[in-house]
Amino acid sequence: MKYAIGVDFGTESGQAVLVEVGTGSEVATAVYAYSNGVIDDKLPESGVPLEPDWALQDPDDYIRTFKTTIPQVLSESGVAPADVIGLGIDFTACTMLPVKTDGTPLCRLPEWRATPHAWVKLWKHHAAQPEADRINATAREMNQAWLDRYGGKISSEWFFSKALQILDEAPELYAAADRLIEAADWVVWQLTGVETRNACTAGYKAIWSKREGFPPRVYFAALDPGLADVVDDKMSRDIRPVGQKAGGLSEQAAAWTGLKPGTAVAIANVDAHVAVPAATVTEPGRMVMITGTSICHMVLGTEEHIVPGMCGYVEDGIIPGFFGYEAGQSCVGDHFAWFVENALPAAYQREAEARGLDIHTLLEEKAAALAPGESGLLALDWWNGNRSVLVDVDLTRLLIGATLATRPEEIYRALIEATAFGTRVIVETFQENGVPIHELVACGGLPEKNKLLMQIYADVTGMPIRVSASRQTPALGSAMFGAVAAGAAGGGYDSIFEAARNMARLKDEDYIPNPAHREVYDRLYAEYVLLHDMFGRAGNDVMKRLKQVRADSRSQIEAQHA
Amino acid sequence: MKYAIGVDFGTESGQAVLVEVGTGSEVATAVYAYSNGVIDDKLPESGVPLEPDWALQDPDDYIRTFKTTIPQVLSESGVAPADVIGLGIDFTACTMLPVKTDGTPLCRLPEWRATPHAWVKLWKHHAAQPEADRINATAREMNQAWLDRYGGKISSEWFFSKALQILDEAPELYAAADRLIEAADWVVWQLTGVETRNACTAGYKAIWSKREGFPPRVYFAALDPGLADVVDDKMSRDIRPVGQKAGGLSEQAAAWTGLKPGTAVAIANVDAHVAVPAATVTEPGRMVMITGTSICHMVLGTEEHIVPGMCGYVEDGIIPGFFGYEAGQSCVGDHFAWFVENALPAAYQREAEARGLDIHTLLEEKAAALAPGESGLLALDWWNGNRSVLVDVDLTRLLIGATLATRPEEIYRALIEATAFGTRVIVETFQENGVPIHELVACGGLPEKNKLLMQIYADVTGMPIRVSASRQTPALGSAMFGAVAAGAAGGGYDSIFEAARNMARLKDEDYIPNPAHREVYDRLYAEYVLLHDMFGRAGNDVMKRLKQVRADSRSQIEAQHA
Repeated sequence: MKYAIGVDFGTESGQAVLVEVGTGSEVATAVYAYSNGVIDDKLPESGVPLEPDWALQDPDDYIRTFKTTIPQVLSESGVAPADVIGLGIDFTACTMLPVKTDGTPLCRLPEWRATPHAWVKLWKHHAAQPEADRINATAREMNQAWLDRYGGKISSEWFFSKALQILDEAPELYAAADRLIEAADWVVWQLTGVETRNACTAGYKAIWSKREGFPPRVYFAALDPGLADVVDDKMSRDIRPVGQKAGGLSEQAAAWTGLKPGTAVAIANVDAHVAVPAATVTEPGRMVMITGTSICHMVLGTEEHIVPGMCGYVEDGIIPGFFGYEAGQSCVGDHFAWFVENALPAAYQREAEARGLDIHTLLEEKAAALAPGESGLLALDWWNGNRSVLVDVDLTRLLIGATLATRPEEIYRALIEATAFGTRVIVETFQENGVPIHELVACGGLPEKNKLLMQIYADVTGMPIRVSASRQTPALGSAMFGAVAAGAAGGGYDSIFEAARNMARLKDEDYIPNPAHREVYDRLYAEYVLLHDMFGRAGNDVMKRLKQVRADSRSQIEAQHA
Repeated sequence: MKYAIGVDFGTESGQAVLVEVGTGSEVATAVYAYSNGVIDDKLPESGVPLEPDWALQDPDDYIRTFKTTIPQVLSESGVAPADVIGLGIDFTACTMLPVKTDGTPLCRLPEWRATPHAWVKLWKHHAAQPEADRINATAREMNQAWLDRYGGKISSEWFFSKALQILDEAPELYAAADRLIEAADWVVWQLTGVETRNACTAGYKAIWSKREGFPPRVYFAALDPGLADVVDDKMSRDIRPVGQKAGGLSEQAAAWTGLKPGTAVAIANVDAHVAVPAATVTEPGRMVMITGTSICHMVLGTEEHIVPGMCGYVEDGIIPGFFGYEAGQSCVGDHFAWFVENALPAAYQREAEARGLDIHTLLEEKAAALAPGESGLLALDWWNGNRSVLVDVDLTRLLIGATLATRPEEIYRALIEATAFGTRVIVETFQENGVPIHELVACGGLPEKNKLLMQIYADVTGMPIRVSASRQTPALGSAMFGAVAAGAAGGGYDSIFEAARNMARLKDEDYIPNPAHREVYDRLYAEYVLLHDMFGRAGNDVMKRLKQVRADSRSQIEAQHA
């Protein structure tokens, strides 16, 4: 039997999964918690303090992940290194770092070790908002057509926002950086000794497209003359579709991991996107929802369409040969966490303790006993703004319909329903703009935790929901791409389609829309759309004016304290 | 020194206060908790079960209140009965009962004791909604002009709703009732031996006005032929303004109370309305807010104006010679109680316990540390519908502006602010319709409990708020009317104006609007009015459609269980 390994680099830890190539059976798993974790307070060793909104990582934590987890899955499973035919990785994105020509991170060099900008900027580093604002404003002024591919807005989390912040705040470090690179590509470089750039991060996070490439030099020059040649000087125009082989494992990386030198290594991938084939989806029509604190929606298309308010679409970005469309809901699991922490009475906590239940389980039980519409409540799920389809971070939450008889589980259910209505808006927007969807496939944390939520999503969207069988879908997806890098000749597969047919599975259990519930939810959805458009579109800016009142009030408080 | 006694009949108990006539000093207080309390489950003795929404009382509990509390304040204070010159009472309203010609309650007669309709119907008896609906529909069909005096709607709590329910459901008992009478007037009858009817309950609860009297016979006949002569057969057209003497204490009542026969007894009054002069208000321009679970707003006017959405206005109904205008907010203290019970996390309960604080005190402390506008939240205070000025029980609560950073004390403060905005709408509606207001005077529970709330009301309305010095304002007001019943010749006063000048006081502490807060609240109030009109007026019936979804869902559930 042959095996592949997938390594999933998350926010707090890296996880390796050893998978049997013939069946996709997950044989062994190992996790390494990054020793320096998320660096958001002060730098390791030097203790240099960081400003608010910074979030860094230590690239050596990624190397330690390889050194720790791969030997562990080998030893636990008893699998011989010669039987491991391929290795794939996926990463959070955009998570990027400045390095030298030989791949050495600047933060590893003594002269830069105490400089914050020398370290890895994690995806949730939010200190580049001024740069993102400049990127968007300049793009609008210069009528850059690519803006439409990203719902009209580039995020502060993305590649050029972060690169421009380095140039703005540490120009000498920017000059010393021979390369600016996604951590995803950097770890593949460390494994193979070869620098490659993947289409997924380039397309979704660095404004690249297969047909048009990067934005023009004149645009970067308008942002800052020093940024004019960023692509040619510090990046690459050789962008490789996912599904290709990056190279063979180097002698050094073989020594780290215990694998054989030359083992096939796949082009890098992103955690959400790599989950799509691992959730069995390699064709149009089935939308994958990667669920957790937020929801990431992925769907494949055969044609190029501008769909309003999505996060982006990239040709070859998810599955080679397709346009990969991505949309997002900023706040899903986070809603429920907020609710439990901030709005759940002590009596419910006591009941959960007395019955030995997790608090979410208790809430699910109580909410499941309610019928659709029974509470009379309706919410807009905008605690954290709205990404798709309104692309507006200044929108806030609305709850309507409460009376003195309203109980906590009714509000909890209304929050679930609100996120389901938000998903339905996304589904219908895709459908109305030429990207067909007829089934939903869920993976990530929520299907494991909350069956009620899954059923409500099916009832609200009127679509069946299937659930990925793997609990570690991204790592499985990376192992699949590892098997594809090896190719059929190497004991793997010649395409991700074949890999998916053999290695990816859905659970037997699925969620079928209940027609009676669907009818009630159609009525509630009509009200949701009315409020959604009233507060999100119609030029009725109550939410924004309230945010302005808040901002004015807070700056006054700061002025008083200064 | 001379003394007067005020007896305040509440929902759960009756309270007597012995007051020194010269200064208003409250010398002694006694409370009697009704032995049969609120009867909402089954009748005493017979155990006959009651339907939902019923709320009855035992009239003998009122007699026991006199027998218990008046001897107690006399003995505690050591005041000689000869020095007690007058007695006044106030009551919840509409609280009414059927009696015989001699005043005997039907429920005291063996043949009717097991009949629910024979007992006192308490103000919060809500089972006469079908009758109220008929009263309103018939009034609209017949273009009854008096409907405008009551904001276009008669409540199920009011006199003719309850009377019609008796006729509908127990016609033989209706026939056996020689009189239908407010409990307020009935207890005065028991004290004096003389049946009188007061202008306050007649005007605010029984559709009477000094100029037009009761609705015409043809209207009552249209409701039910059996009701055609209800006024002439079972009520009275001799309606006496508050401030008059009803009679002298009877020998029997003197024996119950230990007071001297012939002691002056005042015409009956209502608990909220009697508080107005006790809060020093006997002239136009100062609005009294009787605060508690809800707020009752009272203001005097010299002219008759139709003010949209008020509860009613009655000439001579509060202070003789003035139009007494009443408005209401259905849900104020109840909001905060709901919040603490249903939406406050365990951590806050634990902090309050650890610090030995009442939970409301903790919330007030945390909310007071916030600046106006700092939370970015805004609520509509419609948990229990909206009485003034929209007169719409089907409106519900709205909260807008929350994010993942929203904390419980921010929501709590937004609830307080919402009720303050609701008060401002009432104030401005009065002002715009010819009833001037330049100061607010608060009494009842909230000023004692929540200084932050008082300050927010001042900041939001832009008006100073004074606070009644008495903690038992209604009982003090009743004692004042007792002193007026005695007259100057009897050691009291010739008018409620003189009584108020001498016996009523405000606290030294008052609440002055903070101009900086006022400015922020003007901005938030503009948004409140926008949402208020959007959901309450503009024909945008989201809240009502949600209620309809809820009603449909619940009737479906019932059908499934049946």
